[in-house]
Amino acid sequence: MPDVIAPAARAPREPRNGVNTPDLLATINAVKEMPHLAKFRFRASNRWMSGTYSESRVESFSGAGGEHTHQTQFRYDADHPAVLVGQDRGPTPIEFLLHGLASCITAGIGNIAAVRGVTLTSVESRVEGDIDLRGILGLSDQVRNGYERIRISFDIAGDAPPEKLREIVQQACDRSAVFDVLTHGVPVDVSINSR
Amino acid sequence: MPDVIAPAARAPREPRNGVNTPDLLATINAVKEMPHLAKFRFRASNRWMSGTYSESRVESFSGAGGEHTHQTQFRYDADHPAVLVGQDRGPTPIEFLLHGLASCITAGIGNIAAVRGVTLTSVESRVEGDIDLRGILGLSDQVRNGYERIRISFDIAGDAPPEKLREIVQQACDRSAVFDVLTHGVPVDVSINSR
Repeated sequence: MPDVIAPAARAPREPRNGVNTPDLLATINAVKEMPHLAKFRFRASNRWMSGTYSESRVESFSGAGGEHTHQTQFRYDADHPAVLVGQDRGPTPIEFLLHGLASCITAGIGNIAAVRGVTLTSVESRVEGDIDLRGILGLSDQVRNGYERIRISFDIAGDAPPEKLREIVQQACDRSAVFDVLTHGVPVDVSINSR
Repeated sequence: MPDVIAPAARAPREPRNGVNTPDLLATINAVKEMPHLAKFRFRASNRWMSGTYSESRVESFSGAGGEHTHQTQFRYDADHPAVLVGQDRGPTPIEFLLHGLASCITAGIGNIAAVRGVTLTSVESRVEGDIDLRGILGLSDQVRNGYERIRISFDIAGDAPPEKLREIVQQACDRSAVFDVLTHGVPVDVSINSR
């Protein structure tokens, strides 16, 4: 399977899987020449509504040397479920991490398959996280607040041998921004203005 | 400010801030007696649509000794923006981590304030993450794939002195599941079924 080792060198470069492969490769080359274009800053704002219920907006970000506005003003609710004394007006905040993980790796699969000349027919994943709430409830110093473990399983089908499809998923994990943050952590600075 | 040190002992226990405080305290006591109730498993499923665009569903979870279905079948899109050769049909996956972080800490603020007898009038936050895309584009081994740093800033107002409001935000960070996962990381197991 030599094309797994150096796939980009021999793969066709036409659009595939809904990916504009020539544009993607041109973007990568542009960033290679001008590394400052790679600096992005993503943002969200959140407003408390009531109880454990809040709403976030995701509207703009900076990157590629400029400021960008999403085509849609995205809004997301979060809440705790009834069993945790919330009103279930949105998923639990920690469930959004699972969506972020699955969608990040899946976006990478789409891109990588296109660059490697593989046409995908289906990519589905299931992701789950185990958490012991004694941590956040302050009932045990031995239990962490967050997930103890996350599992994600992919079903992928396309016009390549199973081993090549596996390689694409693995590469997508190896280059996933969310996978990196979740597995390695990131410094978070908190500032508070109270009045 | 002795009530910051042992707030629950002296705070009133009526509903407040939209939090059913008596139910919340009863839930914590129930879990204290029966620790197995604290085991939760959250889930999402994701389906690739095209390019970098996918959709997740958040429908059910287990915990408190049973299986639960959200009142609404939550669906979320994710995509890459045009500047990253996507079609912006949803936020970038890594933006959902920012929503998860802000909403998790904010849910904690609502609960903790209620238990401490503080009535909130406003909680707003802005969160941003810095990322250098040379990591995920495979252009530099010196650059990580994910965020290099996240900053979150809170504006909080209520019927308590500023220092007590700050304490509530700090305690919410100290007991936030998402804050813990993002700052400390979590093991992620990947399995792949290719055909």
